[in-house]
Amino acid sequence: MTSLYTDETPKAVKEAKGLHLITEQTPNGKKVQILLEELKEAYGFQWTTSLLNLDAPNPEQNKDWYLRLNPNARIPIIIDNTQTPPFVVMESLAELIYIQETVDKDNIFGFDNKVEQSEVVQWLFFWAAGQPMQSQNNWFSRSAPEKVPFAISRFRARTLEMYGVLELRLSGRYTGAPRDFLAGKGKGKYTIADMGAWPWLRAWKRTGISEEEMAKFPHLLDWITRIAERPAVDRAISSFYDSEENLELVVSTEK
Amino acid sequence: MTSLYTDETPKAVKEAKGLHLITEQTPNGKKVQILLEELKEAYGFQWTTSLLNLDAPNPEQNKDWYLRLNPNARIPIIIDNTQTPPFVVMESLAELIYIQETVDKDNIFGFDNKVEQSEVVQWLFFWAAGQPMQSQNNWFSRSAPEKVPFAISRFRARTLEMYGVLELRLSGRYTGAPRDFLAGKGKGKYTIADMGAWPWLRAWKRTGISEEEMAKFPHLLDWITRIAERPAVDRAISSFYDSEENLELVVSTEK
Ligand SMILES: N[C@@H](CCC(=O)N[C@@H](CS)C(=O)NCC(=O)O)C(=O)O
Ligand SMILES: N[C@@H](CCC(=O)N[C@@H](CS)C(=O)NCC(=O)O)C(=O)O
Repeated sequence: MTSLYTDETPKAVKEAKGLHLITEQTPNGKKVQILLEELKEAYGFQWTTSLLNLDAPNPEQNKDWYLRLNPNARIPIIIDNTQTPPFVVMESLAELIYIQETVDKDNIFGFDNKVEQSEVVQWLFFWAAGQPMQSQNNWFSRSAPEKVPFAISRFRARTLEMYGVLELRLSGRYTGAPRDFLAGKGKGKYTIADMGAWPWLRAWKRTGISEEEMAKFPHLLDWITRIAERPAVDRAISSFYDSEENLELVVSTEK
Repeated sequence: MTSLYTDETPKAVKEAKGLHLITEQTPNGKKVQILLEELKEAYGFQWTTSLLNLDAPNPEQNKDWYLRLNPNARIPIIIDNTQTPPFVVMESLAELIYIQETVDKDNIFGFDNKVEQSEVVQWLFFWAAGQPMQSQNNWFSRSAPEKVPFAISRFRARTLEMYGVLELRLSGRYTGAPRDFLAGKGKGKYTIADMGAWPWLRAWKRTGISEEEMAKFPHLLDWITRIAERPAVDRAISSFYDSEENLELVVSTEK
């Protein structure tokens, strides 16, 4: 059994107790930040955080010490030091499930039965498949070194298609009554299914969707606002989690 | 509460008892077909199947009767008629989790504790994020009405990157010893994590990866073969699930 840590692993990571989050202020990081901030509000839950500067010249996520924790070289990850050996969870949406199941004892943000919890899991996977459409749309329209109108219009259309499915769900067209949240009976309950999708949906303007296009999704717009108004969400998207703002939490092996 | 079914819903769907699968012989359908065939082998589990011809001129998946079951207009779905009202699960990977949790009582294809099961969930989400890279690669290189070399090379590279992460996991480079399967202690255990990724990985040739490129992933190649050799997997990818071959199971509302 090779160890989880090497000599290079930053102290803040290696010596953390309890739950340790390694993140950066990005949509995927925000998902987990939101759940943790909600758990703090609901239970007084405590954890510690390290930030990575993903754009550093020689970025930490590609180094051996980090690949050992996540071979996919991406944030966010969590390390649960209450397990022996410490247990690492990669993939933001899998982290939501793990944290909800192990920390949220009263199932405030999930359900205690497999049928209702399956709705949560379904909408998490729906978004896992939908999100790459939005992120490719971002990439082709904003970052790509070549402008390829054909690819941009494809991913724009696929992003809008995914938004349309969420609108259909929230509108209640096939279930009889509009919903406030994606999973749960009746109007639904605010769960990790919402937290998993929200950080991407809130950024619809930045992905190049126009106000006019978005106006076709009134229930989705209301849902975005409903979640944005939560104090825990506000903290989760604050500069506390930004590696350029909160230098104290940044870990780096560069001298 | 609006009903799950309309006058249009095909009888085979509406009158099904127990677990009913609506699928077609595609990589996403195969994931669930594999699990069900494995459960038949392990427990004698029984279910019924309907097939959709996704390429029909006026395809069923876009019709009101189907959107009521899956607003995302895609296969596969399962309907669990042992629940009242019947419970529909969309998203192939969420279906794997639901079926494994409700049918696989001895946890042959999963784990009974949340920590080990989280490894399964992590690799399912890893693949949920990776798969769109391969499917976009397929689309840009095979189906797109315009050839965009820039997009093809992007998605090829991203697909290879995902394969590389799976190779890293199976090679045991960071865990001390090679693995047979994605999740579980030691060499790992064959679980739904493997079933969720395998139907895409086995099709590496069709996505335009060369033998030479694939030779860099020896553990992944062995894993593909290891799973292909299972009798249940063989049945799951047979013409039984092909809407062009097994006309008896095809449902359609067209006259
Ligand atoms: N499917 C992964 C995606 C994670 C991901 O793409 N993270 C980005 C930031 S949002 C990252 O770490 N990028 C670093 C890099 O690409 O070098 C998840 O949901 O956790
Ligand atoms: N994320 C979904 C994707 C399902 C999916 O894309 N299914 C395809 C067949 S593999 C489909 O139903 N296509 C029908 C269509 O696009 O009209 C899942 O994993 O279930």
